[in-house]
Amino acid sequence: MARHYLDHASTSPTRPVAVEAMVDWLQDRAGDPGRIHAEGLRARVGIETAREQVAGLFGARPREVVFTSGATESIATAVRGTATRGSVVLVPAVEHSAVRTTSEAVAAAGGPAVRTIGVDDRGRVPVDAIVDAVTPDVALVHLQWGNHEVGTRQTVHEVVEACRARDVLVHVDATAAAGREPVHFRDLGADLLSIGAHKFGGPPGVGALFVRRGLRITPLLVGGDQERARRAGFENGPAIAGFGATCAALQDADTWRAEAEAARRLTERVLAAVPGFGGVRVYGDPVDRLPHIVCLGIDDIEPQAVLLGLDQAGIAAHSGSACSSESLEPSPVLEAMGVDAHHSLRISVGWTTSDDDIDALLDALPAVLARLRALRS
Amino acid sequence: MARHYLDHASTSPTRPVAVEAMVDWLQDRAGDPGRIHAEGLRARVGIETAREQVAGLFGARPREVVFTSGATESIATAVRGTATRGSVVLVPAVEHSAVRTTSEAVAAAGGPAVRTIGVDDRGRVPVDAIVDAVTPDVALVHLQWGNHEVGTRQTVHEVVEACRARDVLVHVDATAAAGREPVHFRDLGADLLSIGAHKFGGPPGVGALFVRRGLRITPLLVGGDQERARRAGFENGPAIAGFGATCAALQDADTWRAEAEAARRLTERVLAAVPGFGGVRVYGDPVDRLPHIVCLGIDDIEPQAVLLGLDQAGIAAHSGSACSSESLEPSPVLEAMGVDAHHSLRISVGWTTSDDDIDALLDALPAVLARLRALRS
Repeated sequence: MARHYLDHASTSPTRPVAVEAMVDWLQDRAGDPGRIHAEGLRARVGIETAREQVAGLFGARPREVVFTSGATESIATAVRGTATRGSVVLVPAVEHSAVRTTSEAVAAAGGPAVRTIGVDDRGRVPVDAIVDAVTPDVALVHLQWGNHEVGTRQTVHEVVEACRARDVLVHVDATAAAGREPVHFRDLGADLLSIGAHKFGGPPGVGALFVRRGLRITPLLVGGDQERARRAGFENGPAIAGFGATCAALQDADTWRAEAEAARRLTERVLAAVPGFGGVRVYGDPVDRLPHIVCLGIDDIEPQAVLLGLDQAGIAAHSGSACSSESLEPSPVLEAMGVDAHHSLRISVGWTTSDDDIDALLDALPAVLARLRALRS
Repeated sequence: MARHYLDHASTSPTRPVAVEAMVDWLQDRAGDPGRIHAEGLRARVGIETAREQVAGLFGARPREVVFTSGATESIATAVRGTATRGSVVLVPAVEHSAVRTTSEAVAAAGGPAVRTIGVDDRGRVPVDAIVDAVTPDVALVHLQWGNHEVGTRQTVHEVVEACRARDVLVHVDATAAAGREPVHFRDLGADLLSIGAHKFGGPPGVGALFVRRGLRITPLLVGGDQERARRAGFENGPAIAGFGATCAALQDADTWRAEAEAARRLTERVLAAVPGFGGVRVYGDPVDRLPHIVCLGIDDIEPQAVLLGLDQAGIAAHSGSACSSESLEPSPVLEAMGVDAHHSLRISVGWTTSDDDIDALLDALPAVLARLRALRS
């Protein structure tokens, strides 16, 4: 049976251009970039090339790019590395669990207290709510670029500007947005910005923390002097090369823009079909959102059953924002929005998605819902 | 010109069996293992298979294996995750910089103080020196399995036994030894053990922290529930699969043993040639050592010049233990041993090394040294 993968916001399959760069590395660049020999130099050149490619797509200086093992580590570095700078951190209620939970762990260990900032019913942080809370005792303000679960874009530019004006550090989690939107680090002006490669077709196991020029934060991993002593540990060369190749391919001929337009068109097809389903509503902002994510509320039906039904029809989707399969807990994002946090379905598209995949979804979903509703009654 | 790669202790080229597993993953398993769909389940099966393979080679239960981004992260997790358990940590002076520096950073932030334990002139920690320091206020005892720079094996079994008898946690950094020696987690009885895959031909970007059954430590990365909530962040599937395949291949027909015997024979050829060189001495224990590492002291000649001379002759080697190419600082390991810490040369072999590579070294090194000595005089 044909498969229709509509879970790109969980992870996007690794693009061929990235796989090629990885294989090339594994077969031909296997040296330590910190060593004085030809193999090391070759690895060093590969890593610095990738750094320029990543910096290029995201409007940063190469030296502002710190390669990490992924967005979770980038976020942990931002949170823990700034913890001594104030007595409170601002955390919007819809931030990813990596931001929320790390901030809470640091607070529990005696670090800055967490002040949670509420959101409106579309998941958007009101600019005033966060800006009014930016006082000199704030160690760090967090604000995601766009929400990972419902897609709602945040007002990052306004919030960053307000933070900079008040001389308070701001960290933007752009993990859901990266590669899908024109995320430009220098134009944004944030102090710190986190991304992971696998969310937009780069390899798993690699991400970046962008650190504004001149800013020094305490590293999370220490030991070796890798990444200019900002992230110790042997460089994940193949994944870094694949990450770089992915960014270069997206920047080439504005490929990212064509992909973004395709994603928006595909997800708009889903939104347009919702009124015909019955008992299904749209969560998040249907317009001012990341192009590749839509989140639906499904009245009364357990999401596991919906996911299993879709999977049997060849469709991969997701519900809630839990990062574990072992529990489908109520979504903190939807709870913060004040909507039903137990019955959501997230559809997310990416570089592999075609109209055929959306056709399959629009065909299968009403049938799955009808069958499950019939079982219930 | 043929290359002779004798820097396996920095990083070992990724084995074909690992590359194959990675490519297979990248092309065929690109799902989120935490999701309810066929792609996710396939990824989950791949990760749990790899966990069994890694646990198998290292004598651990699969649930004791926590996949990390590499040894530096494993070590950071061990150090930071146990910091509330006492007021002092014991750190032998020859531990890897990841252990030393992380422990110092934690101490500087108000964590347990670092008590440094000295070593003898071969780099070995005297059992009494460490055991006598194991008091109830010790949060964690560190002891490497074998030294990364001179190869000297430590008395890990005795020290672990003493720690267990005193109910004090012990962490063994087996990064240099893993895949080269029969490192058996259950037989050793340590609480925590760190390894990285790339040091023995697994992929870069992945490692493991073994956590003894029943032990709970504070995770370094939080957010998602991956790795049974012991290490958040999207799983590096391809690297984990390559790591597992490497371990399975080494366990198969005791391949590790054949490789260890070959490594010992090759490094013994280097040791046997040393007396003929003049002005060259052996550092570390020439017998009770990891099979793949030998460290030489080179009288009076700057190591950079030696490395460049060897590189021009096609030979990749290393000097000192600095993880960065930007500085060749005096080796803390050699300093702790009380020998000349500025003029060392480390030769390390691995799965690609043949007699031909050693022939090339034994041919080139005397010539390089003679030329450099002639330039000096």
